[in-house]
Amino acid sequence: MTQTSRPAAPIAAVVLAAGKGTRMKSQRHKVLHPIAGRPMIEHLLAALAELQPERTVVIVGDGREQLEKQLAGRAVFAVQEPQLGTAHAVQQAEAALAGFQGDVLVLYGDVPFVSATTMRSMIERLHEEDEPAAVVLGFEPEDTLQYGRVIAQGGRIAWMVEHKDADDGQRQCRLCNSGLLAAPADVLFDLLRKVGNDNAQGEYYLPDAVNVAISEGRTCAVVTTEDPDEVAGINSRAELAEAEARWQRVRRSKAMAEGATLVAPETVFFAWDTQLGRDVTIEPSVVFGPGVTVADGVTIHAFCHIEGAELGEGASVGPFARLRPGTRLAKGVKVGNFVEVKNAELGEGAKANHLSYVGDATVGAAANIGAGTITCNYDGYFKHRTVIGERAFIGSNSALIAPVSIGADAIVAAGSAVSRDVAAGELRMVRAEQLVKPGWADRFHDAMKKKKADPKK
Amino acid sequence: MTQTSRPAAPIAAVVLAAGKGTRMKSQRHKVLHPIAGRPMIEHLLAALAELQPERTVVIVGDGREQLEKQLAGRAVFAVQEPQLGTAHAVQQAEAALAGFQGDVLVLYGDVPFVSATTMRSMIERLHEEDEPAAVVLGFEPEDTLQYGRVIAQGGRIAWMVEHKDADDGQRQCRLCNSGLLAAPADVLFDLLRKVGNDNAQGEYYLPDAVNVAISEGRTCAVVTTEDPDEVAGINSRAELAEAEARWQRVRRSKAMAEGATLVAPETVFFAWDTQLGRDVTIEPSVVFGPGVTVADGVTIHAFCHIEGAELGEGASVGPFARLRPGTRLAKGVKVGNFVEVKNAELGEGAKANHLSYVGDATVGAAANIGAGTITCNYDGYFKHRTVIGERAFIGSNSALIAPVSIGADAIVAAGSAVSRDVAAGELRMVRAEQLVKPGWADRFHDAMKKKKADPKK
Amino acid sequence: MTQTSRPAAPIAAVVLAAGKGTRMKSQRHKVLHPIAGRPMIEHLLAALAELQPERTVVIVGDGREQLEKQLAGRAVFAVQEPQLGTAHAVQQAEAALAGFQGDVLVLYGDVPFVSATTMRSMIERLHEEDEPAAVVLGFEPEDTLQYGRVIAQGGRIAWMVEHKDADDGQRQCRLCNSGLLAAPADVLFDLLRKVGNDNAQGEYYLPDAVNVAISEGRTCAVVTTEDPDEVAGINSRAELAEAEARWQRVRRSKAMAEGATLVAPETVFFAWDTQLGRDVTIEPSVVFGPGVTVADGVTIHAFCHIEGAELGEGASVGPFARLRPGTRLAKGVKVGNFVEVKNAELGEGAKANHLSYVGDATVGAAANIGAGTITCNYDGYFKHRTVIGERAFIGSNSALIAPVSIGADAIVAAGSAVSRDVAAGELRMVRAEQLVKPGWADRFHDAMKKKKADPKK
Repeated sequence: MTQTSRPAAPIAAVVLAAGKGTRMKSQRHKVLHPIAGRPMIEHLLAALAELQPERTVVIVGDGREQLEKQLAGRAVFAVQEPQLGTAHAVQQAEAALAGFQGDVLVLYGDVPFVSATTMRSMIERLHEEDEPAAVVLGFEPEDTLQYGRVIAQGGRIAWMVEHKDADDGQRQCRLCNSGLLAAPADVLFDLLRKVGNDNAQGEYYLPDAVNVAISEGRTCAVVTTEDPDEVAGINSRAELAEAEARWQRVRRSKAMAEGATLVAPETVFFAWDTQLGRDVTIEPSVVFGPGVTVADGVTIHAFCHIEGAELGEGASVGPFARLRPGTRLAKGVKVGNFVEVKNAELGEGAKANHLSYVGDATVGAAANIGAGTITCNYDGYFKHRTVIGERAFIGSNSALIAPVSIGADAIVAAGSAVSRDVAAGELRMVRAEQLVKPGWADRFHDAMKKKKADPKK
Repeated sequence: MTQTSRPAAPIAAVVLAAGKGTRMKSQRHKVLHPIAGRPMIEHLLAALAELQPERTVVIVGDGREQLEKQLAGRAVFAVQEPQLGTAHAVQQAEAALAGFQGDVLVLYGDVPFVSATTMRSMIERLHEEDEPAAVVLGFEPEDTLQYGRVIAQGGRIAWMVEHKDADDGQRQCRLCNSGLLAAPADVLFDLLRKVGNDNAQGEYYLPDAVNVAISEGRTCAVVTTEDPDEVAGINSRAELAEAEARWQRVRRSKAMAEGATLVAPETVFFAWDTQLGRDVTIEPSVVFGPGVTVADGVTIHAFCHIEGAELGEGASVGPFARLRPGTRLAKGVKVGNFVEVKNAELGEGAKANHLSYVGDATVGAAANIGAGTITCNYDGYFKHRTVIGERAFIGSNSALIAPVSIGADAIVAAGSAVSRDVAAGELRMVRAEQLVKPGWADRFHDAMKKKKADPKK
Repeated sequence: MTQTSRPAAPIAAVVLAAGKGTRMKSQRHKVLHPIAGRPMIEHLLAALAELQPERTVVIVGDGREQLEKQLAGRAVFAVQEPQLGTAHAVQQAEAALAGFQGDVLVLYGDVPFVSATTMRSMIERLHEEDEPAAVVLGFEPEDTLQYGRVIAQGGRIAWMVEHKDADDGQRQCRLCNSGLLAAPADVLFDLLRKVGNDNAQGEYYLPDAVNVAISEGRTCAVVTTEDPDEVAGINSRAELAEAEARWQRVRRSKAMAEGATLVAPETVFFAWDTQLGRDVTIEPSVVFGPGVTVADGVTIHAFCHIEGAELGEGASVGPFARLRPGTRLAKGVKVGNFVEVKNAELGEGAKANHLSYVGDATVGAAANIGAGTITCNYDGYFKHRTVIGERAFIGSNSALIAPVSIGADAIVAAGSAVSRDVAAGELRMVRAEQLVKPGWADRFHDAMKKKKADPKK
C-alpha cells in the first residue's frame, strides 16, 4: 500500500436488499435463502463485521418485514419505494446516516461472499494519497457478457459504462463493475443528488455517481478482486445452488488441508460454522447442520445428519446416525445405525449402537443402550428427562418413560417399559409371563392357508 | 415453416427393438432398462404419443416376450428373424401397416429421448412444397467419429454415407445421421424393396433407402436437431448411466427454475413423473421413485427415499424417511427419521417423528405417533388396517396389532401391544408389573467379570 | 519385447516409506491411509505380489512401528535415520538384501497404484540385449511442472535432471521421472555408493545413481507408462481423495462393463475387493466396505452400507439397510429399511423388512422377521446366538433374548420378549393384560392443557 493521506475514518455500510427476487419464485426474501445453513445476507454481514462498521443500513422494499425480523437490533432499515435504481436505493440511506462522518461501503444482500479483505482494500484505497472520491470494486470474469465495464488505466477510472451502452472498444475491456462502491459519506450523497435518470429504464444508476465525479474532475479508483466468485450475484435457485457448491468446495479443501480425511469430498456438506479436529475421518454422504464441533480422531461413517452437536475425541458415529441439537458426546462414545440423539449428553465410552432414540437424556460413562431403546420424553404436553447411570445396561427394546432415572450399574431387562426409577445395581424387569400354546401356530397356518386358497369361506 | 403442399396425413411409427443388446450383459431387454424409473422405450412412446400415431409397430427379435408383455395393447409387434439390417427391420412392419395411408416415422427403442417437437418437425418437412421422398434426422455431435454422414446442401441430401465408406472430404462433413427417418408409407416400402445388401456385412441398411430415392431423382431432406443428446443411443450400462445423468441434470434445472431449492442438485434423483410445488426445499441425497407429488412449502430433509406418495402443503419429511406407495400426507404432517410409511394417510398436522412403521393405516389430524411405534399390519397371510383417531397419542415402542382402531384423543401407554380397539378418550396400557430385584445386577456383574477373566470356570 | 540376453533373475523390492507425511497432518503413517478400504501400501504390495518377489524390504523411519505391525511377516524392515535422500534410503536395504542375487525394484509406499504390468516391463527391460545398468519408469503428465526430467533418446537415457537444475531446453522435455527404478542388486548398490550429496539440500538423490552409471559409460534405459495416474504420489488428504476418486471411477466403469446397472455411478463407493454378479442393480448412494460378494440379479436400493457380506442370487437390500461382517443372505432374501444384520445367515426367501436388528443369528428359509424385531445378542459381557426356524413368524416389536431358539413354523406374538425357546408350530405370547381406563385420557388432556396454560399451578 502506498502512503495514507486521509486519516482512517469510521465505516458505515449500506446494504441493498430491496429487490423482489422474482426469479427465486419464493415467499422467502431472496437474501434470506440459506447457503451452508445460513441466510446469505448473514455471510455478508459476518465479513462486514470484521471492519467494525459504526452503522449498517439495510435498504428494504418487498418482504421488508422478513429482513427486519432477521436483522433486528443489528441494522437500521430504510425503505426504498418505489424502486428507481441503485443510486436511488443508496440515497434512501441518507437519513439513517445523518450526522455520520466517515466512509460508506455499498454492498448487496445478494452478493454475499465479498471478503472482509476485499472490503478493507476498498476502504484503504479511499485513503491513499490521491484521495479518490469513490472506489469501485472491479472483477475480471471468464465471460464478461452483460456486465457493465470499468474503463480504467492504472487503477484510475476513466468512465463507467453499462454493457448495453458500451461500444466495441469498451466491450474489449475485461474489467467489469461488481456494483460495490466505497466513498466518503458527504461525497457520496453529494454525487447521488447529481445522478440523473435519462436512460431507457428511467432509473438512477449508482455507476453514474462515479461518472458525475469524473465529470467534475475528481479522481475515482478501481480495486480489482482476484476472485471473481466473491462478487457473484444470486438471483435464482440455480445460482443459489452454484454458490452453495462453490462454498462447499472451498470448505472441503480447507478440511482436508487441516487434516481430515474425506473419502468422497463431493458428498460431504458442511455448515458455515462446522469445526473439525485432526485425523477426523468422514465417509461418504454426511450432512452437517449448524453448530457442530468435531474433536480429534472422530470417525463419522456414511449417511449421517449432524446438527448442533459436540463430538468428543475418538467418538464414532453412524452409519445412519442423526445427531440433533443439544447432543454432547464425550470421548470414545459410539452412536450407531438408525440412532437419533437429541438434547442429550453421553458420557465417556457410552454406546447406543442400534435403532434407538435418546432424547432429553443424560447417559453415564460406559453405559450401554441396547438396540431398540426409546427414551419416552414427551407426554404430548411436556418434555421430561431420562438419567442413566454409569455402566448401566439398558436391555434391547426397552422404553424408559421419563422422568425416570436408572442407577449406576443397573440392568433393565430386554423389552421392559420402565416407569419408575431403578436403583444402582438393581435389575428391573417389566415382562409378562411366557404364554405357551403348543400347536397353535400349526393350526393357525392351516386355517389361513385354507382361507387364502378360498377367500369366500 | 414454409407452405405445406401435401396435406397432413395420419402417422404410424415403426420402432426398432430387435437388437440383442449384448453389451448390456443383461437378461432384461435393452429397451426395458429404466431411466428415471421408467423403461427407456416408454420415454420414446410418451413423446410419440403427442403425435397421436394411428399405429405403432414394434420390431422385435430376441426377448420379444418381454416387450410384448410391457407394451401389450399399446403396439403391434413384428418379428425380425434373422436380423439382416435396419432396412430389413423396417420392412418387417409392412404387413402390420397394410392399408395404412400416411407417414411413417422410423424410431429406435434404444434412442429414447427424441422429443415430440423433433418428431413433428420431421413429419412437417415431408409436407413442405418440395415433397421429399424421405426426411432424415441429422445431428452435429462434438465428436463425429464412427457416425454415418449426411452429405447435404440447404437441407437437401446429396448422399448418405457410412463412416467406414466415407472419403476424407466426406468425413469433414459434421452432419451425422441419427438413423431416424420419416417417409410416406407407400414410398418407404417401395424404396426398401430396392435396397441391396452388397456390403461387407451383407446387411440391408436404412440409409440406402434414401440413396435409392436420390438415385431415382427424388428429393430427400434432412432436418437437424440442435440437441445432439436427444439422439444418443444406449448400448451399454455406461451409456445408460450417462443418459440417466443427462436426464437428471435437465430435470434438476427445471425444478430450480420453477422455485425449488436443491441444496446439492447433483445428489437429488427425480423420477420421470415427480411433481414439485413452489418453495419446496430438498436437502442432499434424496431419491424419488415414480408417483410422487410434492405440494408447496414442503421440506424434504437429507437421505429420503420417496415413491408413490403425496406430500401436502408444508409437510416435513426426513431425514432418513422412507415413503412408500399409497402414502398421503396432509398439510403440515411431519415424518421424521427412520420412519417408514406405506399405504397410509396421515391427517393434517399428524406426526410420526422417530423409528416407526406406519403401514396400512389411517391416522387422524394432529395425532402423535411415538418413537418406535409399529403398526402390525401383517399376520403372515393377510394385511390388516390400523385406524388412529384425531389427536390420539400413541406412546413410544407400542405395537398396534391390526385390525385395530384407536379412538380420538385416546392414549396408548408406552410399550403397549394393543390387540383390542381403544375407545375415544380412553387410556390403554398393556404392561406387566415392574419387577424389582435389588442388588441383582451387582451380583450379575461380579459373576460375569469372573467368567470373562477365566472362561474355563 | 526384443530378445532377452540376461537370464531371468529373482526379484527383490525396496519400498520407500520413511517419509514423515507431514502434509497429511495425521497420527497415522501416510502409506497406511486407506483407499477403497485398504491401506495404500497394500495396493502396491498386491501388485508387487504378482511378480513373486523373493524379498521385500520396506524402508521405515517415523512411525515405523505402525508399518511393522501392518506388514509383519510379509516384509523385512530397514530403518533410515537420519533421512538423507532417496539414494540414501535405498542404501539402507543393502544389509537386508545381503546375498541376494537378482533384480531390485525400487518402489514408493505413497505411489501405490503402479500396476504389475508396469513393474514387469521395467524388470524385463533389464534383461534386453543392451543389458541396461538401470531402468527408470518415466511418465508424461499433462503438467510437467516441478518433476525431474528424463533426457532420453530411443529409450536410452542421456541424463537425469532435477526440475530446478534443468535448463529451458531440458524443461521442454515432457518425459518425467516417476522415481521408480530397477537395477540388478550388485549394480544398484555399487552405483549408490558413488552418489554424492553436493547439492543445495545436501541429500543423496536416487536419479544420480543413473547419472553415475551413464558417466561410467553404461547404458541406462527408460520405460514409459501410458497412464500417468499410476505414478501419482499421495502427499496430502486432497491427493488421497483424488486417488480414491480415480480408483472409484475406474471401478465403476468396470462394474458397468460387466453388467451392473449403477443408476448414479458417482454416488456408489466400492471397496477394493467388492465382487458383483450380472444384472445387479445399485441405486444411488451405496457404500461398500471390504469383503462383499454380490450374486446375479441382486438389487441394492439407495442408501445402503454393506461390509463383509454375501448377497445371494436375487436378494433385495434396502433402502437404508446396513449389512455388517458375517452377513450371509441366501437366494431371494429381503432386507428392508432401517435393518441391521450382523454375523447372521438368512435362509432362502427369508424377510426382515423393517426396523430390525438381526445379530448373531441363524434365520431359516422363508422366515418372516416382523418390524421392530431385535435379537438381544449381548448381555454386556458375552454374545449369544438366536436360531429361528424355517417359516417362523416373528411378530413386530419382539425381543428375542439370546441364546434362544424359535422352532419351524412357530409364531411369536407381536410385542413379546421371548426368553425361553419356542417349539416348532407353537405360539409364544408374552403380553400383559389390556388395561382399560375409560375417560382417563380425556381427564389427562384437560389437566395438561390447564397446566400448559398456567405452568405455575
